[in-house]
Amino acid sequence: MRKPIITLTTDFGLQDHYVGAMKGVMLGICPQAQIVDISHEVKPFQIYQGAFQIAQAYACFPPKTVHVVVVDPGVGTARRPILVEAASQYFVAPDNGVLALIYAAQPHHARVIANQRYFRQPVSRTFHGRDIFAPAAAHLAAGLPASRLGKRIDDHLRPAFLMPRRTGKRTWAGQILHIDRFGNLVTNFHVRDFPDLENRNTSLAIGPRQVNVLARNYAECGEGELFMIVGSSGYVEVSVYQGSAARVIGCETGAPAELMVW
Amino acid sequence: MRKPIITLTTDFGLQDHYVGAMKGVMLGICPQAQIVDISHEVKPFQIYQGAFQIAQAYACFPPKTVHVVVVDPGVGTARRPILVEAASQYFVAPDNGVLALIYAAQPHHARVIANQRYFRQPVSRTFHGRDIFAPAAAHLAAGLPASRLGKRIDDHLRPAFLMPRRTGKRTWAGQILHIDRFGNLVTNFHVRDFPDLENRNTSLAIGPRQVNVLARNYAECGEGELFMIVGSSGYVEVSVYQGSAARVIGCETGAPAELMVW
Amino acid sequence: MRKPIITLTTDFGLQDHYVGAMKGVMLGICPQAQIVDISHEVKPFQIYQGAFQIAQAYACFPPKTVHVVVVDPGVGTARRPILVEAASQYFVAPDNGVLALIYAAQPHHARVIANQRYFRQPVSRTFHGRDIFAPAAAHLAAGLPASRLGKRIDDHLRPAFLMPRRTGKRTWAGQILHIDRFGNLVTNFHVRDFPDLENRNTSLAIGPRQVNVLARNYAECGEGELFMIVGSSGYVEVSVYQGSAARVIGCETGAPAELMVW
Repeated sequence: MRKPIITLTTDFGLQDHYVGAMKGVMLGICPQAQIVDISHEVKPFQIYQGAFQIAQAYACFPPKTVHVVVVDPGVGTARRPILVEAASQYFVAPDNGVLALIYAAQPHHARVIANQRYFRQPVSRTFHGRDIFAPAAAHLAAGLPASRLGKRIDDHLRPAFLMPRRTGKRTWAGQILHIDRFGNLVTNFHVRDFPDLENRNTSLAIGPRQVNVLARNYAECGEGELFMIVGSSGYVEVSVYQGSAARVIGCETGAPAELMVW
Repeated sequence: MRKPIITLTTDFGLQDHYVGAMKGVMLGICPQAQIVDISHEVKPFQIYQGAFQIAQAYACFPPKTVHVVVVDPGVGTARRPILVEAASQYFVAPDNGVLALIYAAQPHHARVIANQRYFRQPVSRTFHGRDIFAPAAAHLAAGLPASRLGKRIDDHLRPAFLMPRRTGKRTWAGQILHIDRFGNLVTNFHVRDFPDLENRNTSLAIGPRQVNVLARNYAECGEGELFMIVGSSGYVEVSVYQGSAARVIGCETGAPAELMVW
Repeated sequence: MRKPIITLTTDFGLQDHYVGAMKGVMLGICPQAQIVDISHEVKPFQIYQGAFQIAQAYACFPPKTVHVVVVDPGVGTARRPILVEAASQYFVAPDNGVLALIYAAQPHHARVIANQRYFRQPVSRTFHGRDIFAPAAAHLAAGLPASRLGKRIDDHLRPAFLMPRRTGKRTWAGQILHIDRFGNLVTNFHVRDFPDLENRNTSLAIGPRQVNVLARNYAECGEGELFMIVGSSGYVEVSVYQGSAARVIGCETGAPAELMVW
């Protein structure tokens, strides 16, 4: 039988014991689980960064994978823990929009996680990752039916952030979703919304900079030259061959970007 | 049957191959082991940081877990490798005080790890994590009786560091044990030593700053306001809602803190 | 039966989702795999750093381990993915020299990875770690015969970088291969090329600094004193007891070093 997989995406970092503590709780409940880290370097409290990381990664995992996403500035307040089923996988997270890009990409339904029988007791006020999200995920991974965690809900937060907006016949206003380790700028323009993009004329403006080349691989352009490329998860990215586009352009996550296609 | 769990707490960092090498050695000896990282970002040679990390994490793990703690400035000298049994778990570490907070919290007994048959040969002079601690832990995880590793000892180092000291009828002198990624200041005042704390008057002084509010969750106070909170592992912490208390107060790990309870 | 082990050495870092995505792909193909991180902190595009990390770590792993090494500035160009068999283990990597230190240490043979049936489809232009290297490694780990991936080749890149050069009867010119987290300087002088080193006179020059002591453990010299020591993987290293040799000497990776033995 296939071993259950649980993934973790958090803003906990790796210097503290938080991630290890969650794994201990999960293995106590579901000893056969394979636990995979997506990232723990989401900037503290940056919900949209967590939303981005899990949206980039989930499709690489097999059905039934349980994804735990804890970017949770509201821990200890009334924000609900939820379980979302989408793409034949499970997502366990606070109801604060951190799953918004999953909702945007996939039909889904949501439950509140309310059954305290599946919490670690006593529940602390500051570490629901350990006391609520980890045990709920581990029970699911061990075979608990989702319905045992709590009731279906339909009023979970579905923020529209991160979606591009059409501003003209040929123009869309978007933003830089993410800057990766290599300095690649990931925009929120997804190739599924711009079919046949590579056979049309495109131009991308970020601040005063205009990028007019859509390349097919990193080595196609000269060193130091900015170009667009459809990245590995389908978003248009801005890159420089063997360099950092972020450094060349000097922009940060969240910066506005305008796409023109004709 | 439950798979054996081995955890790792070191000051090796993640940029070098050291942690991977230890895992290779352990899986060669105990292929079924689940290996969990607690933290590898203990500051080089900071024994009390390692002591803190493992003390925060071990209680989340099931019985029989083998915890390997390698913060070992004395590698290659006469300091002994030891095995400590406490809380139905195993702790493998150099005898330099890195397990001091386990000793403080739990009845325990210790052995020296002396049986070279269970070392990786030849033993290097600089990497006992790979050559002594990893193989000893893996043999334990694979079922080796602890007594095979070496004799019981009673003279292992039990430094009294990190314990608060009573300085008056209502006052205790302690310190900042740890500053986490979010800037929360973890003191060494543990709630088990101050029963009913949340129903009494408390005040905490760190340098010139005085914190007078003991909150029940992060969102209870206004933004920018300092407060105490009983953290997820039972220590009194100082926090700021959606901010960094470390930055507000401007203090570092080891800074003295005075608690007043009345 | 022993579970298959796959290791990962990349320049992807841990803040992005890249490593997690590779693991998802691998577990989808080989659910029983144990995946071990060697390092993901190789500096972007620094092939020789990746070469060093895997060369330091592989010998700690049991036979049949599959090592995936992705430092791949040429992703999307014509550089080939290859599979190398050496030391009864497998190495999956781009053909750019990142396995050069394996070739130098071990008899080996190589294959091109060409059979698209074992790729993740569609293959992106920018993330062959996920689409080619991860699935090829997972199929191998799951038992696929190596010959199914592609034909034997003999023209893989075998750069001579990183090897010391004899410059006189008693002198060799080498370099600093790596500076670890503790500030130890790892040279490319390997003890297997200098037999009986500890019983001869040795001196190492790095820039204007001369190191004349070859110690047997870190505590043998006084604080602040530079010394040589044969490190845990057999290379001569320069260290300072409880300090950082890199800071004392002020040098960087790649700096030239001259060894004199007489």
